[in-house]
Amino acid sequence: MMTVIATYSSLGLAAKIAKVLADDVVLIEEKVFPDGERYVRVPQRLSGDIVLVHSTHPPQDSRIIELLLTIDALKGAGAERLIVVVPYLAYARQDKRFMEGEPISIGVLLRSIEVAGADVFVTVDIHRPGSLDEWLRIPHLNVLPVAQLAEYFRDRLREPLVLAPDKGALHRARIAAQILGADYDYLEKRRDRITGEVKVLPKSLNVKERDVLIIDDIVSTGGTLARAAESIVAVGGSRVYAACTHALLVSGALDRVYQAGIEEIVATDTVPSPVSRVSVAEPVARALMELLSQ
Amino acid sequence: MMTVIATYSSLGLAAKIAKVLADDVVLIEEKVFPDGERYVRVPQRLSGDIVLVHSTHPPQDSRIIELLLTIDALKGAGAERLIVVVPYLAYARQDKRFMEGEPISIGVLLRSIEVAGADVFVTVDIHRPGSLDEWLRIPHLNVLPVAQLAEYFRDRLREPLVLAPDKGALHRARIAAQILGADYDYLEKRRDRITGEVKVLPKSLNVKERDVLIIDDIVSTGGTLARAAESIVAVGGSRVYAACTHALLVSGALDRVYQAGIEEIVATDTVPSPVSRVSVAEPVARALMELLSQ
Repeated sequence: MMTVIATYSSLGLAAKIAKVLADDVVLIEEKVFPDGERYVRVPQRLSGDIVLVHSTHPPQDSRIIELLLTIDALKGAGAERLIVVVPYLAYARQDKRFMEGEPISIGVLLRSIEVAGADVFVTVDIHRPGSLDEWLRIPHLNVLPVAQLAEYFRDRLREPLVLAPDKGALHRARIAAQILGADYDYLEKRRDRITGEVKVLPKSLNVKERDVLIIDDIVSTGGTLARAAESIVAVGGSRVYAACTHALLVSGALDRVYQAGIEEIVATDTVPSPVSRVSVAEPVARALMELLSQ
Repeated sequence: MMTVIATYSSLGLAAKIAKVLADDVVLIEEKVFPDGERYVRVPQRLSGDIVLVHSTHPPQDSRIIELLLTIDALKGAGAERLIVVVPYLAYARQDKRFMEGEPISIGVLLRSIEVAGADVFVTVDIHRPGSLDEWLRIPHLNVLPVAQLAEYFRDRLREPLVLAPDKGALHRARIAAQILGADYDYLEKRRDRITGEVKVLPKSLNVKERDVLIIDDIVSTGGTLARAAESIVAVGGSRVYAACTHALLVSGALDRVYQAGIEEIVATDTVPSPVSRVSVAEPVARALMELLSQ
């Protein structure tokens, strides 16, 4: 027995997760005061296992504050074991001091979530799963929805080649390729020694007359994806598709991506977007059931 | 020997504090990524005592995230004892669960500041100073700038009466009245038994032909202040002045306040505003020197 709690930030996904778990959804009351301060309230007394689903896509900072306030309110309202599900976790890319003087933003965020009162933490496809081990003392889990994204493309691609945008993201391409019975590789920047032009092409495989699926964790402005697609089309790739977990799609990203020749881009519903055609409800609900049976 | 660190949030005040302390100011590098995530960087290696000055006026949530990231960056850059000065601390009015299901927002915020790495915490005129004792384990201090606000009005008022907007704020009126050699009282809502009209008038003193100074911690929309001024003018008060520590001044507050007949409103520089004519630099610097001499 558990209760699923939703905020407006992830209402659709929370409802789907609750459906899989055969539970009801309780919606947090939210308002903003005239000066801009946020207010939340849990509309009923709670007990037992509570699952909060709240994503932190733009406006990230407000959604983070709302997350922390909601965690505190849920504990105050009686949540005994509070499982905090943040489908898209902002600031996860700033996971080390790349230059001296920088913060480790994801560490700050995870410690705040823990100190606010989370008992278990679940996220989806965090940029580097090691961040969770590094900064959380509470039990935690990273759900990888690559199989769900790959399933969307089953029987749609001809002689497919699955590509990761860089070496660090190769594990997603490998899992998707397995499901699609395809080859996989990662993209590499190469500078033409004569023209100086930069091309983004697969490390070792040839894309000629093959359908290409590029798979990544986050599409933000779509710049990386657009450059890759243009290069692949230029050397004779057949059709180029893209899949990502978190579709932030800022600054005209969709226009950029389609203009670069991408046939279709598909994302999950960790961030609500016009291309969120794949739901993470099933794998998240499965992870919750496993966690709670322990 | 200490170093004062400023963000754009409190650059003017930080510079004044540094001047009193005869120290330099180091400005934090700040930027916002295309997706809305904030980035900060400390531009030099640090050591010893570090004083960060960063206010959290609107947009509060972004300034809070920036505060937490900056604290983490400063500790990473070598700050040995980090004194975090937040001249205006947002969310301080939500200091208990007024209704079941609410968060204690100020508790969430203070715990996040501590876990991010603050070693000492200083704020100015927090709504309820007890919040600091309740939620912080690190040394902390609340600076009350009422004397500075009262000094601004010395020799300007005729037979002055200092009023607090409610009983809970009476201590500010008492301190200001002492400095101005004036009487003090607090305002009370009274409903006319015949017309049903609500008036806001002093509990026991008569305002007739006296200059009135209303003193409070926060002016947000100015609604409370405007209602009080209208009532005081209606029963024959001479001139009405207002002083506050934190001038948030949202939703046309200044227009509302002047239209209600207030001669002048004056605030401190905890929140930069057009009426911030009194600086808290001196009392904050004095508090820092005392803290650091311990």
